[in-house]
Amino acid sequence: MRRDRLLLAATLTAIFSADLYFVLLPKLRSVGLGSGDLCPCGSDNFTLPRHGGLATPQLSNWTLYGTTSELADDGGSKLERLFSHPLYNIEIPVLGSEERLLQAEQPMEYYRKKVAHWERHMHLRNEAAALSNITVTEHGVTFDPEASWLKFHSGISSYALYSRNDPAIPKLLKDMHRMSVISADYTQDEKALKGACDCTQVVKPSGHHLKLALKMQDFGKAMFKPMRQQRDEETPEDFFYFVDLQRHNAEIAAFHLDRILDFRRVPPVAGRLVNVSGEVLLVTQNEHLRAVFFTSPANNTCFFAKCLYVCKTEYAVCGGPDLLEGSLSAYLPSLSMAPRISISNPWTRSYTFSGREEWEVNPFYCDTVKQQYPYNSGNRLLNIIDMSIFDFLTSNMDRHHYEIFTKFGDDGFLLHLDNARGFGKHSQDEMSILAPLSQCCMIKRSTLVRLQLLARPEFRLSDVMRESLKGDSLQPVLTEPHLSALDRRLQKVLRAVQRCVRRLGEEYVITKDFVKSTGTPQINTEMRKDR
Amino acid sequence: MRRDRLLLAATLTAIFSADLYFVLLPKLRSVGLGSGDLCPCGSDNFTLPRHGGLATPQLSNWTLYGTTSELADDGGSKLERLFSHPLYNIEIPVLGSEERLLQAEQPMEYYRKKVAHWERHMHLRNEAAALSNITVTEHGVTFDPEASWLKFHSGISSYALYSRNDPAIPKLLKDMHRMSVISADYTQDEKALKGACDCTQVVKPSGHHLKLALKMQDFGKAMFKPMRQQRDEETPEDFFYFVDLQRHNAEIAAFHLDRILDFRRVPPVAGRLVNVSGEVLLVTQNEHLRAVFFTSPANNTCFFAKCLYVCKTEYAVCGGPDLLEGSLSAYLPSLSMAPRISISNPWTRSYTFSGREEWEVNPFYCDTVKQQYPYNSGNRLLNIIDMSIFDFLTSNMDRHHYEIFTKFGDDGFLLHLDNARGFGKHSQDEMSILAPLSQCCMIKRSTLVRLQLLARPEFRLSDVMRESLKGDSLQPVLTEPHLSALDRRLQKVLRAVQRCVRRLGEEYVITKDFVKSTGTPQINTEMRKDR
Repeated sequence: MRRDRLLLAATLTAIFSADLYFVLLPKLRSVGLGSGDLCPCGSDNFTLPRHGGLATPQLSNWTLYGTTSELADDGGSKLERLFSHPLYNIEIPVLGSEERLLQAEQPMEYYRKKVAHWERHMHLRNEAAALSNITVTEHGVTFDPEASWLKFHSGISSYALYSRNDPAIPKLLKDMHRMSVISADYTQDEKALKGACDCTQVVKPSGHHLKLALKMQDFGKAMFKPMRQQRDEETPEDFFYFVDLQRHNAEIAAFHLDRILDFRRVPPVAGRLVNVSGEVLLVTQNEHLRAVFFTSPANNTCFFAKCLYVCKTEYAVCGGPDLLEGSLSAYLPSLSMAPRISISNPWTRSYTFSGREEWEVNPFYCDTVKQQYPYNSGNRLLNIIDMSIFDFLTSNMDRHHYEIFTKFGDDGFLLHLDNARGFGKHSQDEMSILAPLSQCCMIKRSTLVRLQLLARPEFRLSDVMRESLKGDSLQPVLTEPHLSALDRRLQKVLRAVQRCVRRLGEEYVITKDFVKSTGTPQINTEMRKDR
Repeated sequence: MRRDRLLLAATLTAIFSADLYFVLLPKLRSVGLGSGDLCPCGSDNFTLPRHGGLATPQLSNWTLYGTTSELADDGGSKLERLFSHPLYNIEIPVLGSEERLLQAEQPMEYYRKKVAHWERHMHLRNEAAALSNITVTEHGVTFDPEASWLKFHSGISSYALYSRNDPAIPKLLKDMHRMSVISADYTQDEKALKGACDCTQVVKPSGHHLKLALKMQDFGKAMFKPMRQQRDEETPEDFFYFVDLQRHNAEIAAFHLDRILDFRRVPPVAGRLVNVSGEVLLVTQNEHLRAVFFTSPANNTCFFAKCLYVCKTEYAVCGGPDLLEGSLSAYLPSLSMAPRISISNPWTRSYTFSGREEWEVNPFYCDTVKQQYPYNSGNRLLNIIDMSIFDFLTSNMDRHHYEIFTKFGDDGFLLHLDNARGFGKHSQDEMSILAPLSQCCMIKRSTLVRLQLLARPEFRLSDVMRESLKGDSLQPVLTEPHLSALDRRLQKVLRAVQRCVRRLGEEYVITKDFVKSTGTPQINTEMRKDR
């Protein structure tokens, strides 16, 4: 309970700071300078209710900049300034074991076991090879207690996947980009399919069968999604969202956007030029995977999906002749250590040609959801709304399920996994993705103030995204039209909130964060569905 | 036997005329005008051996133009001039029943039966509809003894699918382009599959499952292949020929090219904007076909393949919102009236990722083929070489089988069906397609002299093709780079012949046409394979 209070105090302080920054300062300025409006967009004119004085501010790196125009014009790093902004510097209390996903020794024990298993396996393989007079390539593995993936796993808390200034995250991105790959295999999802797909189903999600699990020299694991579309190609207008290709650059961009929004619910993703011969074909010990490799008429190394109904070379991806762009997403801790559940999104789409879900036809759908466990209390619905804002910004219509860590109960944050179907069409804003926000008319105050910040010229979302994405080796990750679309969509989110406020008032719409669930922290089994 | 002699005489006359035109006249001119070379390309410098005086010329519309430069520069119709050229006006003797594919009354009887069957079927359908109080659309059908498709079928002879000046052919093209569609269905090939595809085969030809059989108001039937690729798109370099898309414009262009080469072995093909709602969905009585129609997110009417393993909407084709470009290829007479056999091409490709057929590794492969029935005598091998030249010009690598009418025995002409995989890459010339010519070093004299004619500026192949294709409603059928590729490839064919002549001499390489088979006109069952 004490920790909760501390947290509440920290939040209120942040809100007070925002209030001071967004409301009081401009008001003072407008008194002094006449009616000069510093905020160019109407949707940005929310005033936050005051909670000043309720708690002592606990802010680190607090810097109050002189004027907003200085910020916009001095040519410095907008991204650095964003991350030094008070809203991005709320101090999180020291984490207890309840707030940590893993116990202190757990990841290290797991790591030791994996290395021992690998070494046994390699020993047996080498013995067998020596008997058959075959030379096998040795992959130098390292046991590194300082491995970045280990630090990432250890740092996962009930607040987010990583803390804002965790040095392990940039290191993990660098490691995924550079480190030697010692093994490649299908992901568990694919293995579960055993190559047998349900071909009787006319309409089903497809195209996800080309992802691979790569193991790095330090035993870090990453999911590799190869490039299947050029950055300037738009999804054809006749494609349904469920047959849209997966885009490696959307995975990368989604990680950066999520970090910029301060959600930190997307595992780190880095771009990499993967050598499909040396880093997949040569290192895999899965014969099925080896069997889907071929050399194209243009002498490029290619591979296609395992599932037979898509085992056509039209679906293949090819290196040039061996190098292929792709995204590498860091694996979460093993399910045995940190179980997760996959829950059907109440705003899921129909995944049929003409079917419509209830939310598409019933404007009062949210009232029904609000009465259902676990959306009837706590943060779950607000988390769904956060996710819908995130998906609207990336234009990802394929959010059929979401995952949470069971350890953190019903109020645990939602994992924003699988973002590769975003960024398909820059010219279109799919308003239906915002349905949870526009139908429920609720938003977390912490989310809103950050969105407002990112709508300001000095922190413009497209600018901070462009800057953030420059850090990836596959830059430019997004084309300019996709970056501009982010600004346009952000305005639409803010307008949607404004409409709600006009209709229902700020008190109703803008909701305090960190409201603890009043229900028992159990999981409603009816909502659970395995992915 | 007498008819054969007449034919031989006619051919020799044509050759004599060509000799006069190509060899003697230029020689005379060069004597008179110095050493001015009228032919710009080296490969065009063949001299034909003289057969003058052996037979009386039997030429219609013989016009000897003044000078070649006049022909090239006066801006008239090159295509008309090509078709008035003596080489395109060799008179065919009056056809006897042996030279005709069908007996006089056969097509009409077939037609009457079909109309009677349709009317019975419609009567029953209307009665059933009346009982259930359903309104059914009536399709006005006409019994037209002058129907162009009927004339086309009646005109098929042992020489070609149609005669050069048959007025039924332009009429048939017009009818396929304009006439009302009264019914649509899967083709027999597809029906044979019953929607169950062999998905265990990793590599198999695909993409052909979207063709449909359309029945016109006058009971003419055409195969509809919808547009699946924009004209300016090139086949990706990593695609194998057997997964390449089928191109409707390649079907149309192949018909025009075949006619220009004077082969006349491709059934007439016309382009058409098909209304997939009104002319397919509404008129089909096949429920399976109706079931694959859907409305896309962009509100266009789309349909996808019947075969389940490709029943993904990525494969769908969509109208805009209903109109969809496609090629309509005239049906040949029913197999019950005019049986055909499908024979494996000795120069077929391996249809695997890395397999190689014998012809690809053995430079003496042709010697083996030449010893095998039916390639050991008669015209069959020369016909294969004609086909390889045709396929090289269109760059179609997918000629795994060819068909012949059984009635005309081993020396019957080869049908050049299924040309939709041509014209995929304008920037590349796939020399391996020419293997039958370059390995066997034989070519029909009649083919060679026409190719030489089309290499001359006054009849330039790209120019006559451009002109011919202007007659189609979907013009421009081919982009300019594809037209230029035809000229470039034609030069390569002529150079291949030249190399053979240098090595083996004209007498060996340039072969007299119409050599009758010395073997029994039976079909070698070992070579036969059903498609």
